[in-house]
Amino acid sequence: LSSPGNLPTNRDVHEARARILDLVEVTPLLPLRLGGHDLWLKCESLQTGGSFKLRGASNRLALLTDAERKAGVVAFSSGNHAQGVAIAAKRLGIPAIIVMPADAPAPKVAGTRAQGAEVVFYDRRTEDRIASAKALAEQRGAVLVPSFDDPYIITGQGTAGLEILEQCPEPVRRIVTCCGGGGLAAGLALACPEAEIITVEPEGWDDMARSLAAGRIEPVGPNPPPTSCDALQTPLVSPLTFAILKAREAQGVAVSEDEVKTAVRFAWAELQLRLEPGGAAALAAVLAGKVAPWAGTVVMLTGGNMDPATHAEWVT
Amino acid sequence: LSSPGNLPTNRDVHEARARILDLVEVTPLLPLRLGGHDLWLKCESLQTGGSFKLRGASNRLALLTDAERKAGVVAFSSGNHAQGVAIAAKRLGIPAIIVMPADAPAPKVAGTRAQGAEVVFYDRRTEDRIASAKALAEQRGAVLVPSFDDPYIITGQGTAGLEILEQCPEPVRRIVTCCGGGGLAAGLALACPEAEIITVEPEGWDDMARSLAAGRIEPVGPNPPPTSCDALQTPLVSPLTFAILKAREAQGVAVSEDEVKTAVRFAWAELQLRLEPGGAAALAAVLAGKVAPWAGTVVMLTGGNMDPATHAEWVT
Repeated sequence: LSSPGNLPTNRDVHEARARILDLVEVTPLLPLRLGGHDLWLKCESLQTGGSFKLRGASNRLALLTDAERKAGVVAFSSGNHAQGVAIAAKRLGIPAIIVMPADAPAPKVAGTRAQGAEVVFYDRRTEDRIASAKALAEQRGAVLVPSFDDPYIITGQGTAGLEILEQCPEPVRRIVTCCGGGGLAAGLALACPEAEIITVEPEGWDDMARSLAAGRIEPVGPNPPPTSCDALQTPLVSPLTFAILKAREAQGVAVSEDEVKTAVRFAWAELQLRLEPGGAAALAAVLAGKVAPWAGTVVMLTGGNMDPATHAEWVT
Repeated sequence: LSSPGNLPTNRDVHEARARILDLVEVTPLLPLRLGGHDLWLKCESLQTGGSFKLRGASNRLALLTDAERKAGVVAFSSGNHAQGVAIAAKRLGIPAIIVMPADAPAPKVAGTRAQGAEVVFYDRRTEDRIASAKALAEQRGAVLVPSFDDPYIITGQGTAGLEILEQCPEPVRRIVTCCGGGGLAAGLALACPEAEIITVEPEGWDDMARSLAAGRIEPVGPNPPPTSCDALQTPLVSPLTFAILKAREAQGVAVSEDEVKTAVRFAWAELQLRLEPGGAAALAAVLAGKVAPWAGTVVMLTGGNMDPATHAEWVT
């Protein structure tokens, strides 16, 4: 990091990009005409593995020492981070163990296994995934790769923002992005210092929005409502992602299940894109009019790993 | 056309591009690592309307006189050309009637109507669609917009090739494309004079392949097998598309239903892309090893309008 002990910076995102240039794809930035405005869609759902998660994982794994590479890595994830770590590990020749909830969507489990990773399940209701993963990592002498609370994960995700700046033919004034733990949102904030950052979370899971409004970290409340956005079910943001977004005066909005569903249907019917619910959250906020479609607005389409049968039910 | 009475040329494709620059999207060219080779995928399935057809339709409609625009246009199509004409007509403020087979896939019918076009059905078994459309055009004083047998349709489709030349970081040595009537294949041949052109058709519907091999136009045989590639069920290629492809010594291959299905599944699982069977035919030929994956090979992913329920059955 360019400033040890401090928050990662724009320079760290540039260094991350150089580090992972051959490990990730440049994803398309597609135009969308909406209500007389031209928006831009950053299609991270077309990234290898179906989400932006390959970026952070590649950046973290590329920094491992030779000894660490031999011992391998452990990650816990509901799915997209799992696939990101599994693919990055495969590309770099590193053994990977992924701790997944037993009820993770089947395509995410299959996608993780197909990359050669070992999958270990935990029970979302009775076990602590962080504790499970930490115990496993210690037991095997492996490095734990967090899904968002890590400067290299954050700067890796931020590389999508550097691509946006190169791809967008007009000044990027605002980036609307879904938010789980805030790794992508924080990375984009670092990558695009001139852009306003708006985070989008499912209703009842909008702890980043409430934390940013309150000026201090607030967890998701007790008994949050069920949400289809499995990728955004994060009970607590990290001090690191929160500090970065707070410093940039980011703001958050929440979207309903119906708004998410409308966005998944819109992406399929109008954009020919398969999005998973969490990956459509930012688009949902724009379609619902919760974020006005200014010129220079970029909407992050962050993931596409939805169970095909459920997806078909949603869009028919 | 730059050479009246003759075949359209590369210059005509450049003129088409200038004409339709604001009417179509630049589609992504994505890399694909396959068996140690780097291929390029031109994602026309992400074009507005879900296929490349908007290109040719926009080019033809942009050339109509004021009087012709008022009278409107008629097109016949199993679906993608229908949507292309409907969207181009809507963008240019021209009334459109689309003649579709009564058994056209529901999303294609819905997509055409959603663009404000009038849909008129015909019975694929008992009625001649060309005669139906011609009669309708005469009756209403409207201009008939053919789906491939027209120099402006061909050069419009070819604009995808000019984009490929700009987007591809290496010399384009070969383009693999699906082929119905040959409009796209011929357009690409004009746009990319240095590239080898390979057409891909469903087994039993490979009349372009057989025509190119024989040196003269040969129709699809009697009782062709059923195919999921509804977009490629063209009984006869046109003298125009055939002459262009013959002059370039294009070659054709045929793919089986299983190979097409494998490609649709691959696109969904590995590329996060929804492809319709016809839109996956070129990819199918490459995955099946019927076209060797040389460096500098571009594979056209031409359409994505597949019934969601059927698509879900295929990919699960």
